[in-house]
Amino acid sequence: MQEIRDLVRAAAEKARQETSEEPEPKFTGTVEFPVDCAVGRGLEGAIATDTKIGYVNGTKGWLVYRGYEIFDLAQFSTFEETSYLLLYGKLPTSSELAAFDKKLKEYRNVPASVIQVLKEMPIKDTHPMSALRTAVSFLGNLDGTADDTSVEAEREVSIKLIALFPALAGAVARLRKGQEPVQPKGDHTLAQTLLYTMTGKEPDELNARLMDINLILHADHGMNASTFTTMVCNSSLSDMYGSVVAGIASLKGPLHGGANEQVLYTLEEIGSEGNVEPWYEKARAEKRKIMGMGHRVYKAYDPRARILGPLAAALCEDHPEVAEIYKIAVKLEKIVTDQLGAEKKIFPNVDYYSGIVYRAMGIETAMFTPIFAVSRVSGWTARALEYLETNRIFRPRAIYTGPVAAEYVPIEKR
Amino acid sequence: MQEIRDLVRAAAEKARQETSEEPEPKFTGTVEFPVDCAVGRGLEGAIATDTKIGYVNGTKGWLVYRGYEIFDLAQFSTFEETSYLLLYGKLPTSSELAAFDKKLKEYRNVPASVIQVLKEMPIKDTHPMSALRTAVSFLGNLDGTADDTSVEAEREVSIKLIALFPALAGAVARLRKGQEPVQPKGDHTLAQTLLYTMTGKEPDELNARLMDINLILHADHGMNASTFTTMVCNSSLSDMYGSVVAGIASLKGPLHGGANEQVLYTLEEIGSEGNVEPWYEKARAEKRKIMGMGHRVYKAYDPRARILGPLAAALCEDHPEVAEIYKIAVKLEKIVTDQLGAEKKIFPNVDYYSGIVYRAMGIETAMFTPIFAVSRVSGWTARALEYLETNRIFRPRAIYTGPVAAEYVPIEKR
Repeated sequence: MQEIRDLVRAAAEKARQETSEEPEPKFTGTVEFPVDCAVGRGLEGAIATDTKIGYVNGTKGWLVYRGYEIFDLAQFSTFEETSYLLLYGKLPTSSELAAFDKKLKEYRNVPASVIQVLKEMPIKDTHPMSALRTAVSFLGNLDGTADDTSVEAEREVSIKLIALFPALAGAVARLRKGQEPVQPKGDHTLAQTLLYTMTGKEPDELNARLMDINLILHADHGMNASTFTTMVCNSSLSDMYGSVVAGIASLKGPLHGGANEQVLYTLEEIGSEGNVEPWYEKARAEKRKIMGMGHRVYKAYDPRARILGPLAAALCEDHPEVAEIYKIAVKLEKIVTDQLGAEKKIFPNVDYYSGIVYRAMGIETAMFTPIFAVSRVSGWTARALEYLETNRIFRPRAIYTGPVAAEYVPIEKR
Repeated sequence: MQEIRDLVRAAAEKARQETSEEPEPKFTGTVEFPVDCAVGRGLEGAIATDTKIGYVNGTKGWLVYRGYEIFDLAQFSTFEETSYLLLYGKLPTSSELAAFDKKLKEYRNVPASVIQVLKEMPIKDTHPMSALRTAVSFLGNLDGTADDTSVEAEREVSIKLIALFPALAGAVARLRKGQEPVQPKGDHTLAQTLLYTMTGKEPDELNARLMDINLILHADHGMNASTFTTMVCNSSLSDMYGSVVAGIASLKGPLHGGANEQVLYTLEEIGSEGNVEPWYEKARAEKRKIMGMGHRVYKAYDPRARILGPLAAALCEDHPEVAEIYKIAVKLEKIVTDQLGAEKKIFPNVDYYSGIVYRAMGIETAMFTPIFAVSRVSGWTARALEYLETNRIFRPRAIYTGPVAAEYVPIEKR
């Protein structure tokens, strides 16, 4: 376990050496809307809100939750504590964390009727994110508090969802393989619950800590599409279940949550270290996007990839089954960053190494995105709750470029 | 029936008299992103995309689908034809409409397993939009084409959803009342199917046409929150079922789909014509928002309210049960527009009279928003499909105003 912390610390030190030393620019005061901005396609550059939750400095390659660097949280925190931090804006005291953890354990079991609904869908042929989406939507219908859209009520629902997602993802994983779900047990953390309810086996300490770090790293990341979907949905004063359902639906997309899965397929397609260069030349010639490389926001090395890369490397020692894939990944990274890093600022993003880490942990590819959801639900709910406090319904504009004053011609004359 | 068309025509003429005669400004060329804009809270003013689907001229009070004025469509078109227009960009020929209608009839039955899921939730205590959300999410899992995100496959799913929403809403309506759902039958239009599957009774011609007009009027309306939610979700290349699920979740919110319900509660709270003035004075003093009045986009009389107002008036003749409510509405409208119309541009919006029309048609209040969804699904899918053709994932920015460089203090020292 110490070894993992050392790896994360080393990644942090490397990151600090490679980025400038100047202090983070502190925004003071409040944001005055309207804000003048240059808005690109996909609303790039548009200011959707102000926030105290998290911060991506894409130029430097820093990711911050509530003021805390992701490197510190990955070394010292837990997913439970990180979720508390995101929801409440401060690190908990021992008694606050104990109370929070008590709730998480109280809410973590999947109701029998939700399992029943999962069994009634053709689950082996259903995308696991679609299964999760349906289960969470059904779950909301069992909660009499679902339609109370006060901040307090929605915060409680948020805690319920953070608590329940691990076992829900676990149930989906098992049912897909024709196995009966198992319920969470004992003193398991959220990371342990996720591993236990997926496999039915007691997770070892290493895997539990690796999963915990993964959950911390994926918990929040600015105004990504699923977080933004959740916020837009919730801004109509919908309800937290429905808004999280919308977030799940959004995260499912291969341009978003599905990317680490695509990275593995790419590495498998390359097949061997020797084939990396010819594959890359061909991909470039075909203007093919290289999955796991480059990011709308990061123009530097993604801090999450800085952590996951060394973890993947360490896992290769005991997991020869991923060693070849890892070597391919490292070689492809070198070629891409050598050629495109300086000029086009293309570096590995979080998805590039996370799939390798998961595979070394024995997790099937189909569960990568549901695991992402288990983590990101804390960011989704934290940001939706924050926005709710000064809510204004999201309603941007579209520029109409179609015909005007068209004459309605009766169908027989068309 | 002629009488209804005359009412709509009269509303159109009144609208044209009351707005300036200058021709609609035609946007020529393509939109060049990035676009400089002043972005307010809730992304007001941000340009999310360019579109050829629909157009709201809020200053003049015009609503246009694919170049056709809503006044013409409400007089001469049907919801089927309007849906075709939104999806394909042109009015269909007779044979195109027949082929489209054949598909709508083929896809309109609710699968037994979806009915089963509706029965397994505590449906009498479940918000009908949450029930619809869960049913559509489950439905997606039954469709082997759901994860094909090509424009053609998503368009076919869109047609399936437009076809199926009436009977799905009908099933929710009946199950809530402890009644067994009925399946669509015979030559029923989508409007007739909706009425028939809700009530189990053959709808009369008047109600069918009123519902048809309602469905036409609500089908599309710019970048409203549920349409925007659908588009943001779909921009990750999620899937059309999931994106429509997200749209349903968003429309559920009382700031969006739930507003016409709130209008009725307000009118009932006022209780009598004589109480309108004192109620209004008190509401103003308490700075209370008056539901159904004012709109982010319309700074003129909402064209949909121009149509629904006279329809409500006409219905009062045979429906004394809504006559009093209608009189209260008219009096409140007069006071509000006299006092706030000129200066603050506050006029009735679509929600102001639609609830009265529905009530006169014998529709229970809880079904107002699901009916909205039955209509708007055509706009959701049309806009998501259009965006998909030149897709870019939505990812705006947030301005971080929280702490930076916070020091991680171990829990025992907090």
